[in-house]
Amino acid sequence: MSDQYREGTAKKRVVIVGGGFTGLRAARILGNRDDLDIVLIDRRNYHLFQPLLYQVAMSALDEGDIAAPLRNMLANYNNITVYKGIVERVNAESKTVTTDFGEVAYDYLILACGVRHHYFGNNGWEQYAPGLKTISQAKEIRRRVLEAYEAAERTNDPVERKKLLTFVIVGGGPTGVELAGSIGEMSRYTLSKLYRQIDPKLTRIFIVEAAPRILGTFDRNLASKATRSLEQLGVQIWTNSMVSDVDENGVQIGNERIEAATVLWAAGVTAIAIPNDMGAETDRIGRFVVEGDLSIPGHPEIFVGGDQACLLNEAGKPLPGMAPVAIQEGHFIGKTILRDLKGKERKPFKYTDKGQMATIGKNRAIVEIGNIQFDGAPAWFTWLLVHIYYLTSFKHRVFVLMQWGWSYFTFGFGARLIVNREWRFYPDSNTCPKDPPL
Amino acid sequence: MSDQYREGTAKKRVVIVGGGFTGLRAARILGNRDDLDIVLIDRRNYHLFQPLLYQVAMSALDEGDIAAPLRNMLANYNNITVYKGIVERVNAESKTVTTDFGEVAYDYLILACGVRHHYFGNNGWEQYAPGLKTISQAKEIRRRVLEAYEAAERTNDPVERKKLLTFVIVGGGPTGVELAGSIGEMSRYTLSKLYRQIDPKLTRIFIVEAAPRILGTFDRNLASKATRSLEQLGVQIWTNSMVSDVDENGVQIGNERIEAATVLWAAGVTAIAIPNDMGAETDRIGRFVVEGDLSIPGHPEIFVGGDQACLLNEAGKPLPGMAPVAIQEGHFIGKTILRDLKGKERKPFKYTDKGQMATIGKNRAIVEIGNIQFDGAPAWFTWLLVHIYYLTSFKHRVFVLMQWGWSYFTFGFGARLIVNREWRFYPDSNTCPKDPPL
Repeated sequence: MSDQYREGTAKKRVVIVGGGFTGLRAARILGNRDDLDIVLIDRRNYHLFQPLLYQVAMSALDEGDIAAPLRNMLANYNNITVYKGIVERVNAESKTVTTDFGEVAYDYLILACGVRHHYFGNNGWEQYAPGLKTISQAKEIRRRVLEAYEAAERTNDPVERKKLLTFVIVGGGPTGVELAGSIGEMSRYTLSKLYRQIDPKLTRIFIVEAAPRILGTFDRNLASKATRSLEQLGVQIWTNSMVSDVDENGVQIGNERIEAATVLWAAGVTAIAIPNDMGAETDRIGRFVVEGDLSIPGHPEIFVGGDQACLLNEAGKPLPGMAPVAIQEGHFIGKTILRDLKGKERKPFKYTDKGQMATIGKNRAIVEIGNIQFDGAPAWFTWLLVHIYYLTSFKHRVFVLMQWGWSYFTFGFGARLIVNREWRFYPDSNTCPKDPPL
Repeated sequence: MSDQYREGTAKKRVVIVGGGFTGLRAARILGNRDDLDIVLIDRRNYHLFQPLLYQVAMSALDEGDIAAPLRNMLANYNNITVYKGIVERVNAESKTVTTDFGEVAYDYLILACGVRHHYFGNNGWEQYAPGLKTISQAKEIRRRVLEAYEAAERTNDPVERKKLLTFVIVGGGPTGVELAGSIGEMSRYTLSKLYRQIDPKLTRIFIVEAAPRILGTFDRNLASKATRSLEQLGVQIWTNSMVSDVDENGVQIGNERIEAATVLWAAGVTAIAIPNDMGAETDRIGRFVVEGDLSIPGHPEIFVGGDQACLLNEAGKPLPGMAPVAIQEGHFIGKTILRDLKGKERKPFKYTDKGQMATIGKNRAIVEIGNIQFDGAPAWFTWLLVHIYYLTSFKHRVFVLMQWGWSYFTFGFGARLIVNREWRFYPDSNTCPKDPPL
């Protein structure tokens, strides 16, 4: 790309790496200003509303419902250019980033790449146990879950059938609970009348959690209510259970073993690493440790926000990797750059705790805001409204609301399509291929 | 699967291979009867409304809008069992089909597998020039088109840029015209304000057609109007032009060559072949030649319908591979089986010609019903209404209508997401990978 903005202008160049919650919010704060030129780079061309990814995995929504092209979202900001590309290296010395389409110079740099799944060193497990951070993974999970039921319908072998109708979710945080609850609801309600050879209600669902209880970030009482709720949907919860191995036939938990055709990973994340010369410290999951103003120590022009940043709160604990944190940090970084331009002194970032929620199924959820706790249908509606509000465009709000409305009243759970994972061209023979590439 | 229905009952077993227009309609005709046991087998778990696939390819719709799970569509027919599987062989001698999950016996067999793309013996071309018969292909086309614009935005090389902004569609029938018109509309309207480095209106779009004119099945005048309409959207039409080679850089047409990053195949289809012992004749594109009642000569219990069948009309020409033909044939086959059960004599199939349509873009389409011809906005609205009507569930009609309504008024063209084609797990290193598997 040509770097024409740099010559002979008074504009400051801000490079934003990552078009998620943090990067998008920062871009909007800095948009439409004559004194700034913004370049936003993302390896994908869309902004993804991650909290609803599990809905795509469970076929209640399609990818178009929870994602929108970055280009469109920023089209009205005439000082923002969007590139789909990969940042390969940060060169703090020369104030440039190396991308797969050239070098890009910056006056300010915002790193907001997020996290990816972490298998605690056992990367071989990933092919057996997909995580849920991307649309591709959500579609893959959808495919595996539905294929399991199709295969169970076809088989005569009862042991094979039991394995096909067994789902193991590794990790008992909100994501694991959402996945388990969805499969529970799907098997006990949505799919119950659709099969002739099998009874979907016989589905076994396990949450395998290494800690002493699930939903460790929530109050003990609420987590307990969630546990009861999950059990009513047929979910068995194994705590104090650390997975020691995962293969194509199931999971090993010390001396115990569960045979399952589908294993889903909701257990650990690690920050996306970018080679750099910033000399920055990272925490044990790879997040950059930042100053109080979210900048890299020694590099006040480089900010990190969202899941990729590690900022300690007053209690000395890092802020969680949640959407409200990411959004507030993006907002703060944008405003801080504007303060710089006006010559004002920077202030430290202060997170306004909006609480936390986890959903299990229709009318089943938990909400905790400070000292306020509630569950059941009011919690579920709260969860629904908050997520609809935060979806980032009017169209999305209306359509998602209607999709959900439809699913809610019919337990229909949307499209529920299996689309095979790859587009592969046919080999020479045009007979019915054994492995359908369609 | 256990074949429990066969022992000691008076029920006739009907096996339907393929859940497209033909198979689905036949199933519904035969559903909910005490004297019939229906088994429907499809290699996919969903019914696909193919006429709107190009809308998915052009990002106006998502796959969930044009497809629905077969299991749901047939849930209320208690005598129909749906299996996701592949039929590997028809054994007319023993009246069974061999599938990838076992042998299935039948009293009646309905083959309705449809067609796949045909590259006239040049199967190596398929990787460079995807066709448009499946959701995977539609998503792949979407990905390639959008990636071309992203790459053009990033590059500094004007020749590379020109190639990236060039699209070649091979085949000038309705599908090719729809694709070309969509890309034309997208480039001249929808994308025009979204890029900073390129001008999408400079996109070159070619239809390459071997015959003397495009839309050969339509009246000459209508085809001529369509040509003018396409040219107004920037599409260049090359007739009497047969593609002699396709590679990753473009197409060769005899001595001429067009360099294009994206080539789409809309030129030829061939029936999906199933190994069999029926002794049936096939036409030059592999379709089974059927009797007047759509059965295989010598096997009155085996029917073929839809694109997989070749039935000659009164003029000695085969019926076209169109949705109305497929639907009417499915209906007829179902009714014919019912006549058999009542001991009535079979009648020959008679196609009621519903005409044909092709759409180019907003307010641009052609409609021909018998001697009636019209184009422009009335034709486009007709096309719209007919397609919405035939969409197979209430939900689909309402949602697709609203999606289109949105796109129509905003030229927004839906989600327009690129989702990389494979879910591949990360290699050991968790640095930003060069080839994003996300």
